[in-house]
Amino acid sequence: MEPAGERIRIAALELFAERGFHGTGIRDLAERAGLSSGRQIALDRPPPERIAGLVHIHVLTHATWPLETRVVDGEMRALSAARRDEIVALRDEYEGLWQQAIETGHRQGYFGVQTPRLARLALLEMCSGVARWYQPQGPIALDDLAVRYAEMALGLLGAEPVRLPSANESVRRSIELIDTIWPASG
Amino acid sequence: MEPAGERIRIAALELFAERGFHGTGIRDLAERAGLSSGRQIALDRPPPERIAGLVHIHVLTHATWPLETRVVDGEMRALSAARRDEIVALRDEYEGLWQQAIETGHRQGYFGVQTPRLARLALLEMCSGVARWYQPQGPIALDDLAVRYAEMALGLLGAEPVRLPSANESVRRSIELIDTIWPASG
Repeated sequence: MEPAGERIRIAALELFAERGFHGTGIRDLAERAGLSSGRQIALDRPPPERIAGLVHIHVLTHATWPLETRVVDGEMRALSAARRDEIVALRDEYEGLWQQAIETGHRQGYFGVQTPRLARLALLEMCSGVARWYQPQGPIALDDLAVRYAEMALGLLGAEPVRLPSANESVRRSIELIDTIWPASG
Repeated sequence: MEPAGERIRIAALELFAERGFHGTGIRDLAERAGLSSGRQIALDRPPPERIAGLVHIHVLTHATWPLETRVVDGEMRALSAARRDEIVALRDEYEGLWQQAIETGHRQGYFGVQTPRLARLALLEMCSGVARWYQPQGPIALDDLAVRYAEMALGLLGAEPVRLPSANESVRRSIELIDTIWPASG
């Protein structure tokens, strides 16, 4: 398989040729380039595992790409209206994955937290925050960071303390996934 | 007692007259004006109660003063070197209160969390984050917000689920305290 950057370049060329620049959405591009984060957080998995997967992906992305994620998270207002609508819809869908996992876990008795919406907001702020302080040359390795954050997230949700058997595997898959989406680090 | 704004104005005048502007530190000013957050988070209280008090104060301040706290949290680099040193020292001391409470709670068996330093970073980001989304006209009242955040914070720390008997009292004292420090809202 070609590197993700090249796949995205080819997919963009194809789509722009077929539909024009203004007719091409980000989702079209992601699909054409074969990018998907679905396998990590599949809806048939138990909610604690989905939350752990979401935390792994979110934390690793923000720790590895602090400048890029801060711009993506904070500068939506700088986009033109048409582009902003598209990005806001993607963001809402992404946050919906968190909300669904929290609400399902709440309904099924996995999570004792009283207010799923507040929990989602707290978790996203906590996980995005690593972009503001994480130092790759510091004392915490990336995979430890992801595992510890998933534990804290499950604690915040009022889950019974669990050590997910597949934490290391989930982190490994997350890193692989992020490597296919984000360009290789300098 | 005079309103806090007036007390700070008088204290500043006195100190500038005594020591000059450049000889006056923020701590001197706070002490002279009779401002202190100590009573909420006294070191003789059990760590879960201290954490709840810190969360109440931090969340209420950030929810009530979103623009001010975002500037204070994010724009330290804009200060001159001398002023920055002073503010950084105050920030370090403040974060030390969180760190101490978490470490003491960890050592004394209140908190199961594995990495107190990561927990402090996660909690501060999660609590500061309310400045980015909280809407006073939205569905969540300020005191509910503070109580729920303290519950989630204690969950994150791996504390046994507790309903602190004094949560409402602590929130009331926090609001009172913040009202003495921050100028009255327009």
